[in-house]
Amino acid sequence: MPKKQPNAISPTRAENYPEWYQQVVRASDLAETSPVRGCMVIKPWGYALWENIQRVLDERFKETGHRNAYFPLFIPKSFLEKEAEHVEGFAKECAVVTHHRLEAGPDGGLVPAGELDEPLIVRPTSETIIGAMFSKWVESYRDLPLLINQWANVVRWEMRTRMFLRTTEFLWQEGHTVHASEDEAQAETRQMLEVYRDFARDYMAMPVIPGEKSAAERFPGAVATFSIEAMMQDRKALQAGTSHFLGQNFAKASEIKFLTPEGTLQHAWTTSWGVSTRLLGGLLMTHSDDDGLVLPPRLAPAHIVIMPMTGRAEDPEAVLSYCRRLRDDLRNQQFDGRRVEVELDERDIRGGEKAWQWIKKGIPMRLEVGPRDMADDSVFLGRRDRSPKDKVSVKRSDFVDTVAATLSDIQAALLARAEAHLEKHTRPIDSEVDFRAFFTPDDPEHPEIHGGFALSHWSGDPAVEARIKQELGVTIRCLPLDEHAPGQCPFTGDRSPQRVVWAKAY
Amino acid sequence: MPKKQPNAISPTRAENYPEWYQQVVRASDLAETSPVRGCMVIKPWGYALWENIQRVLDERFKETGHRNAYFPLFIPKSFLEKEAEHVEGFAKECAVVTHHRLEAGPDGGLVPAGELDEPLIVRPTSETIIGAMFSKWVESYRDLPLLINQWANVVRWEMRTRMFLRTTEFLWQEGHTVHASEDEAQAETRQMLEVYRDFARDYMAMPVIPGEKSAAERFPGAVATFSIEAMMQDRKALQAGTSHFLGQNFAKASEIKFLTPEGTLQHAWTTSWGVSTRLLGGLLMTHSDDDGLVLPPRLAPAHIVIMPMTGRAEDPEAVLSYCRRLRDDLRNQQFDGRRVEVELDERDIRGGEKAWQWIKKGIPMRLEVGPRDMADDSVFLGRRDRSPKDKVSVKRSDFVDTVAATLSDIQAALLARAEAHLEKHTRPIDSEVDFRAFFTPDDPEHPEIHGGFALSHWSGDPAVEARIKQELGVTIRCLPLDEHAPGQCPFTGDRSPQRVVWAKAY
Repeated sequence: MPKKQPNAISPTRAENYPEWYQQVVRASDLAETSPVRGCMVIKPWGYALWENIQRVLDERFKETGHRNAYFPLFIPKSFLEKEAEHVEGFAKECAVVTHHRLEAGPDGGLVPAGELDEPLIVRPTSETIIGAMFSKWVESYRDLPLLINQWANVVRWEMRTRMFLRTTEFLWQEGHTVHASEDEAQAETRQMLEVYRDFARDYMAMPVIPGEKSAAERFPGAVATFSIEAMMQDRKALQAGTSHFLGQNFAKASEIKFLTPEGTLQHAWTTSWGVSTRLLGGLLMTHSDDDGLVLPPRLAPAHIVIMPMTGRAEDPEAVLSYCRRLRDDLRNQQFDGRRVEVELDERDIRGGEKAWQWIKKGIPMRLEVGPRDMADDSVFLGRRDRSPKDKVSVKRSDFVDTVAATLSDIQAALLARAEAHLEKHTRPIDSEVDFRAFFTPDDPEHPEIHGGFALSHWSGDPAVEARIKQELGVTIRCLPLDEHAPGQCPFTGDRSPQRVVWAKAY
Repeated sequence: MPKKQPNAISPTRAENYPEWYQQVVRASDLAETSPVRGCMVIKPWGYALWENIQRVLDERFKETGHRNAYFPLFIPKSFLEKEAEHVEGFAKECAVVTHHRLEAGPDGGLVPAGELDEPLIVRPTSETIIGAMFSKWVESYRDLPLLINQWANVVRWEMRTRMFLRTTEFLWQEGHTVHASEDEAQAETRQMLEVYRDFARDYMAMPVIPGEKSAAERFPGAVATFSIEAMMQDRKALQAGTSHFLGQNFAKASEIKFLTPEGTLQHAWTTSWGVSTRLLGGLLMTHSDDDGLVLPPRLAPAHIVIMPMTGRAEDPEAVLSYCRRLRDDLRNQQFDGRRVEVELDERDIRGGEKAWQWIKKGIPMRLEVGPRDMADDSVFLGRRDRSPKDKVSVKRSDFVDTVAATLSDIQAALLARAEAHLEKHTRPIDSEVDFRAFFTPDDPEHPEIHGGFALSHWSGDPAVEARIKQELGVTIRCLPLDEHAPGQCPFTGDRSPQRVVWAKAY
């Protein structure tokens, strides 16, 4: 057994995966808990990561014809009630504004006053308020398709919260579109699912399985919900993005009608789709290790940290100048269509402590530069996708010339590793015995270590799904889009149209 | 009197300025009212303008060392109460969350349930919740300065709302910084005021007067508040951005302390500063005319619209191809460090109606291209800073080659016009008689037409300020930073350290 790094995350993944997760969030400086129940504070390093996610996705949304807009934070209670399944889905976990001021109470403290005629719900999602606006904006087929996206905060009053994965308030984008035909709305739903899949794979280096949700897991009010499902390192599934075909349900609830070319008035078809700051949790659990966060270069807030080692230098200023010139040269390089981002860390703290802070933050490359490196016109390079001790001396000019290629190499290495993990722990399973064994932890002290994703047949019977969920805590994550071969349900023997992904999930 | 354009905004500015404002917001498609009291919907054209404002300011914030982060939407009531003046300032207009779910009530409808132990306030501003986090993040002088910005939505329950200028929910940025010395915090306060002033002038083409607020107009809890004040076309003032020196007030309320190099524990000095979607209202009222919105090119979501005139074309497709090539050529040009943004409007609607839609949206340049223009290899150009009828034929290649210069020219023309307006209606006034005359409307049917900004002396006596406000509805907008000459207060004869800006205000 390798000796444990004294600076590594404690506990390790093997020791206690959930606690390891919290410790990586903390040690990487991504976020921390706040005094407001269930709400987190996204710190600069985490927020910069979110900004990079936003930048890339926003470009994709605009390329596919969507435009951003902004709608009210508050949803009148009566709006939420317009779609029966929808309100049923969100009523149990919503923040309710009932008053519009504070005034001095009988005991001197401030108490809520100015009660509202109608309570306002802090948006858990915006279908109903956006639908109300769309019903004004859409008159004729000429107004369609209407393709809108919103970047916003939303609130769902979760009883058990976990940073990024499940918080009372989170940041997200929600796309809302209106179409003149069912086919077009379905095509939009699938197109945005593909945008999410490509983004997860190409930028987050996180392979995902795109598929349709079972009826039990559908968005409240949707006709069909699609998701991308990723496998975390503990082999649990994370739903990382959803795209909903809403049929005419919300168009009817909000009276979104359009005049057809033939002159008849018809309800439109709508979609909605979203990803959230939950992606940061998925990113963390896909790549990070017992040393801390690991960031894919295409999304990293900074690519390289330069750490001047001036401790034993005769002329510390010369080392600093060398490092500053190196920083400027690196910033003149391009990676993935943007400037190479370099941090020059001149803080006066111990070199080891400094390096470990950056390892824990997941920066793709670390450069140590001391007097000897300078004399040799070299840098001492550590890559975050390799062991902290695996450092090499590289000629300065070679390093600068190949920096973009090296970053691409790290990006590819992370994706390959994640793909291998997903493949290794995804298994076709054709009997109930094997299925139960697959999801039974070997070690009762580590209930998180189970098989992974089972690809098993399912007839579509919700009773089977409910029973497995209750007995094993395993759910159908999705009906993968690329599974078409029929077979036999291992639980009932019924005919099954395709294999589905079963897993424990976040 | 010139004949009124049949397509222009009705009413005109002269007829009814406040109503003209609402009509321009509507006709330009910037925003519209929502079914949620006091909350607006920012439509794509308005949101794209806000995104451009964000992009430029965000760069400036980062250049000056600030990093973005995100803090909770909700503020526990007890946090707001930590600073006495602060809570006094916001208690009367805040949205209060008291429950965390809805459940079926006695009459079948849903009613708020799950009452919270402590009410949560939807943030009207975030000093107290951010202060609580900063108190954890700051331990030693080595952690300072701490320079953070947040882009967020905030809620202030306004009784009388007006799109962009005063809405219940609005979007803004709030900078929050912590410093080891009073001098440094004051320098930060002034630096960010300058960032705002430069942005207003250089990007919005909106000249502003930077200055300090009187005590009566200070941010609740601040030691000193600075603002930039702009003059709208009705000569009223708009406070367009504020920067607050908070002294140690919030550091004491939130216990933000640091260890000095000498080893003593000391309360820090903090600042906060912000601009909001109110800027869009200011932009509108600075440049727009009786034909609709006028956008400065540096912030316009699109710079040029190309309108193919295929109505009488023998070969409409040839005209469209010509227009598409023109669009592509224009997009290869750079203006102000970004791509020239071009809209190609191929919609099948009347040419006059189409052109007027774009005039009302304020796009800087309109190109009409019909078969004759194509034959002549020309475009027919209308500039938004000139009359809609003042259109000229320009050789295609000349137009493309000079497009950036023309956009710069429009930007400069708008600034020059706004500066002339501000100068013309800003007057030193040294007697109470003249002061009263300056603020007395000539025409009782148009109470908005008054003098403008009066630069008059003021001894600092709050009683004078209160009396003038009550009698004339005129307030001290700011004590301009570049006024230093002492004089005599026209109201009391007392000695005055400097002239101040008096005006009616939004």
